[in-house]
Amino acid sequence: MPFVSFEGVDGSGKSTQLARLADWLEAQGEVVVRTKEPDGGRLGADVRGVLTRERGFSLSAVEELLLVAAARHDHVREVIRPGLDAGQWVLCDRFVDSTFALQVHAADAPEELFRVVTAAVVGHTFPDLTFILDIDPARAASRRETRGAGPADPAERTRDFEKIRQGFRLLVATESRRCRLIDADQDTSAVALAIQAEVRGSGLFPQD
Amino acid sequence: MPFVSFEGVDGSGKSTQLARLADWLEAQGEVVVRTKEPDGGRLGADVRGVLTRERGFSLSAVEELLLVAAARHDHVREVIRPGLDAGQWVLCDRFVDSTFALQVHAADAPEELFRVVTAAVVGHTFPDLTFILDIDPARAASRRETRGAGPADPAERTRDFEKIRQGFRLLVATESRRCRLIDADQDTSAVALAIQAEVRGSGLFPQD
Repeated sequence: MPFVSFEGVDGSGKSTQLARLADWLEAQGEVVVRTKEPDGGRLGADVRGVLTRERGFSLSAVEELLLVAAARHDHVREVIRPGLDAGQWVLCDRFVDSTFALQVHAADAPEELFRVVTAAVVGHTFPDLTFILDIDPARAASRRETRGAGPADPAERTRDFEKIRQGFRLLVATESRRCRLIDADQDTSAVALAIQAEVRGSGLFPQD
Repeated sequence: MPFVSFEGVDGSGKSTQLARLADWLEAQGEVVVRTKEPDGGRLGADVRGVLTRERGFSLSAVEELLLVAAARHDHVREVIRPGLDAGQWVLCDRFVDSTFALQVHAADAPEELFRVVTAAVVGHTFPDLTFILDIDPARAASRRETRGAGPADPAERTRDFEKIRQGFRLLVATESRRCRLIDADQDTSAVALAIQAEVRGSGLFPQD
């Protein structure tokens, strides 16, 4: 039943580290649901389509926040909650903290809107543990270039990377019980080991 | 610069009456913007597509509220506000009151969510005058059959018409300065005359 989210700018290694942790948990007999936002759930693909469609204009932060929240409401009820209720681990690539960093901290969506929408959308289904993969913006950009893709999240195309990073770091200060800052400038295996150590130390993992 | 919205269940005659009022205003030299929700603005068609796509499940009221609000944010900024700022009349077929009646009163979206989202999305751009076209649900249903269509708003397919009607009527009580109850069981011309009389009496129309 533990719920773990991975946050950070595109190129910080979220999906790689999610896969590493999932593999490690499965190797120990745990059942793992691997999911992501905004694509997860039954509305995710539709909402992603609206978010990423090429237009002559960019969506505003408020519009992005509302669209992502609509998909998240379904994602929580149809994917995350059922997994947790079945005693599975749910690992999610991006969740509410991306909305805070991208649409609130690095843009102009009001914090009260974020707070009230999040309460209505996720209820008590909050991550037990959130890994904030922190990386130098230039390094993240070069990783994205290596894989030949722009930022996967359209909101990252138009916003200040350093500001997004600061938003994530702020969460480590304000929600220190849940959010762990991970130095994602290290090599992949070192990051994976750091995450495994946090999971072991969190009390979520059945100790033998 | 007056902003007038038309509300009521599908089959109550909103689009017909909007056209009648627009024609009447234009005949007197006014410039009128005719628009509607959720289709209005640059995101309206996309959001309508997500709302109406055939799926094996219905969207929840919270999801509908958030999706419609995303389109409304753009609609206010790109269509309604520019029209009002240019000194034009803006007539809108459905606006925030449909969200209240359909997703809050007749379903389970929280009222606080509606209130906070609406404040963030429309700001001060609220209708000066709202016509609530009140009609017997059976009569509205037979009108829809005559035009050979189910409810145009997907949320009306699954919800209790009488409850939606009550939601609209409640607004006439709680926002009596803005909202006018119009008996839409009368013939089209009688309804149009009643609406023109309200507009004349509202002080919005330049008196000669």
